[in-house]
Amino acid sequence: MTHHYQARIYITLRPSVLDPQGVAVKSGIQHLGYDNVEQVRIGKYIEMTLSATDEAEARTQLDRICDQVLANPVIEIYRFDLTEVAAVTA
Amino acid sequence: MTHHYQARIYITLRPSVLDPQGVAVKSGIQHLGYDNVEQVRIGKYIEMTLSATDEAEARTQLDRICDQVLANPVIEIYRFDLTEVAAVTA
Repeated sequence: MTHHYQARIYITLRPSVLDPQGVAVKSGIQHLGYDNVEQVRIGKYIEMTLSATDEAEARTQLDRICDQVLANPVIEIYRFDLTEVAAVTA
Repeated sequence: MTHHYQARIYITLRPSVLDPQGVAVKSGIQHLGYDNVEQVRIGKYIEMTLSATDEAEARTQLDRICDQVLANPVIEIYRFDLTEVAAVTA
């Protein structure tokens, strides 16, 4: 039997990697008067639904998808939460 | 006294809005053989540190920053978690 899972994937730059987009956004926010903002770092957030026979298989596959497609392991790290959901009525 | 907070902001397209980037990524993943992936939607994830006198002030300010700068309220929704952190040694 297949189960359906929703994954919430968070991809961020490694802490040692400079984030020019975050620096630009911080500067923009500060120019609007919010000068108490200290640091901004920008990442990606991906919601994915997938089917798998069990949670372990879903996690294994998500690790592969993140490493191969979604994140660049040289400069980015990823983490994800996984929750089982009811089957999508297609 | 000022407190320091870390906000984790998640910005996603409204469910009614088509996400062509997510459709493209899903197609790419499926072409790599992961044909059990059912839906992909792509959003933004932002980590921000800011100082404020209390949590309520930080939340009010984050709401304004999200509405004015980070998200487009017409097509996107945002949510954030807030945690207090130790002062950044500058």
